[in-house]
Amino acid sequence: MQGGYFVNIAVLGFGTVGKGVVEIVDGSESDCSIKTIFAREKYRNEIGDRLETNFDNILQDESIAIIVEVLGGETFAYDCIKRALNAHKHVVTANKNIISKHFIELTSLAKENHVALHYEASVGGGIPVIQTLIKSSATDQVYAISGVVNGTANYILTQMTQQGKTLEDALTEARESGFAEADATADLEGFDAARKLSILGTIAFKQPISYDDIQTRGINGVTPAIIEKVTSKGYHLKHAAVAKYVGNQMNLRCEPVLVKASHPFFHVENETNSISFQSTYNDTVTLIGLGAGSLPTASAIVSDIYLITRGQYYDAIVEPTVIDKISNIPTGEYFIVTEEEMVIKPASQVELDQSQFYASVVE
Amino acid sequence: MQGGYFVNIAVLGFGTVGKGVVEIVDGSESDCSIKTIFAREKYRNEIGDRLETNFDNILQDESIAIIVEVLGGETFAYDCIKRALNAHKHVVTANKNIISKHFIELTSLAKENHVALHYEASVGGGIPVIQTLIKSSATDQVYAISGVVNGTANYILTQMTQQGKTLEDALTEARESGFAEADATADLEGFDAARKLSILGTIAFKQPISYDDIQTRGINGVTPAIIEKVTSKGYHLKHAAVAKYVGNQMNLRCEPVLVKASHPFFHVENETNSISFQSTYNDTVTLIGLGAGSLPTASAIVSDIYLITRGQYYDAIVEPTVIDKISNIPTGEYFIVTEEEMVIKPASQVELDQSQFYASVVE
Repeated sequence: MQGGYFVNIAVLGFGTVGKGVVEIVDGSESDCSIKTIFAREKYRNEIGDRLETNFDNILQDESIAIIVEVLGGETFAYDCIKRALNAHKHVVTANKNIISKHFIELTSLAKENHVALHYEASVGGGIPVIQTLIKSSATDQVYAISGVVNGTANYILTQMTQQGKTLEDALTEARESGFAEADATADLEGFDAARKLSILGTIAFKQPISYDDIQTRGINGVTPAIIEKVTSKGYHLKHAAVAKYVGNQMNLRCEPVLVKASHPFFHVENETNSISFQSTYNDTVTLIGLGAGSLPTASAIVSDIYLITRGQYYDAIVEPTVIDKISNIPTGEYFIVTEEEMVIKPASQVELDQSQFYASVVE
Repeated sequence: MQGGYFVNIAVLGFGTVGKGVVEIVDGSESDCSIKTIFAREKYRNEIGDRLETNFDNILQDESIAIIVEVLGGETFAYDCIKRALNAHKHVVTANKNIISKHFIELTSLAKENHVALHYEASVGGGIPVIQTLIKSSATDQVYAISGVVNGTANYILTQMTQQGKTLEDALTEARESGFAEADATADLEGFDAARKLSILGTIAFKQPISYDDIQTRGINGVTPAIIEKVTSKGYHLKHAAVAKYVGNQMNLRCEPVLVKASHPFFHVENETNSISFQSTYNDTVTLIGLGAGSLPTASAIVSDIYLITRGQYYDAIVEPTVIDKISNIPTGEYFIVTEEEMVIKPASQVELDQSQFYASVVE
């Protein structure tokens, strides 16, 4: 990272992603340097002199221009981000929950304080989807987004499809590989994907898309027999986040979907993520890459730092309130899949029987 | 396009792409305005008062900050770009030939004059590959790029694969659809792809990759029988531009390749383009989108203008001379394909028989 101005950085948190950020920045010929790492005392051996256990000291250190928030959790991290912005420090965060919940408040706060708030790592790991979408929504009209954005769910579905595993076994494996958390509820029930869609949708549609506005169903209930049935018909089962305009109303859904072999998501496997968006001038643009992992996520953070050192702050233009109507009535066709059969139904009938497993057909 | 500072733009050229730029900028609530369109007198009815037939008047107009060069051709366009940069005007161009041939000279000239030289539209139409690659090569180490970057060749191969057409018939169709030029030599023989690879490689590997350094073979000689043979073995035939490090030497090739169904290029059809790159921290990132057409290409130009109005100039860091050795010895495996059989050979043997059709196997 060369050519910008020199900055000191404080990293809050020394988990997987925090360690990745330190590894990349320390290892590069760079205009920036990690001066301080905020973590618990028990990490002193590993961190050495850069350890700081008191956040106030970081806020008061005028030589620190950028704060990287990779603490995880919500309450304390949210507080840190707000205090950092108010102290006129740039903030780079990977925290999808905070960005999703407080988008308008925090981006406004950054603007008032003339600092950057960057969050590329909050969606899609190392895929530069946020930066791309901000530019596209500024210069084009984006009217639909769809994404495979939860690595754990996609890993599970891939393993079930390719290896015939059960959901439980695939989840255990994902945990052992280190990219599923102990509590995988948000991954399995689709809430993690909904958080990410709310961020993408907010940028793309230029109005706050709340997590609560998204119709969300997860992958719980998927059995090897269902996967076998789907595969035998030439489909792959994916979990997708979709935000699109149907007429002039927004349709916001995170749910199981079926894709054919010609669909870009068909071969998006394991922890790989993919995001497609449609716009007036460009038809469809698709991005594919690693959606999780220490270094991909850390590299998204480093890319955000790079932009700050060049004075290139995010400039998503988002109205403070929702301007278009949200109507989450299902559209298109759904497959109701049981272990015995796979029945196609028009979308208007799918809410009738919540006891069955059903998946939208994505073209 | 909102939020930047207001600029006047001159568009040089009123062909397909020039018209697209005017359409998008005129139609948007925008911080910028097209003041002047440089074209021949015969376009006066269509262009009206904005027509300017004398380039000197544009150079001397101090209210014009950005010049969009979409003239096509080389000599005159190159002269215009140089004079514009020397007159301290920002330049946005779609001209892959000029950027490929004069990368170091023109980017240096822009830097000396403290103006931007942007060229997103030179590769991949509306896919934001240049902007993405500049960032990735600044913050990560990119060690391989591969791309389906010639829409005409890909259209022809897709039509031959899906409809059983001959190369000649598919080419005629591409011309009728308006995206193959009358002289399609550069498309069929791979030179167009090589120009684009030289630009991508220069940015990614941070040293000038000359078009002449790329081992280039086109799609001439592909017959329906060859396509049938390839398809029957589960492959798709594509034309790909590949630049990668093999050890510490650069391997630069534009040639026919075979991809399996799980490869991201397998379903990249017709005028769609795709570029993948591998880097140290991110493994593979793939971008897919429309690689040609008036509005996609124009939207890449508008995206470049958007960055300029925000002071976000391209900052690819490229050494003025080649630093790594180039060795274009083929690697991996090749298929020699005749109408009767498909024989796999190690790469070391493929130069032996130039009379046969052969394609590299891309994993």
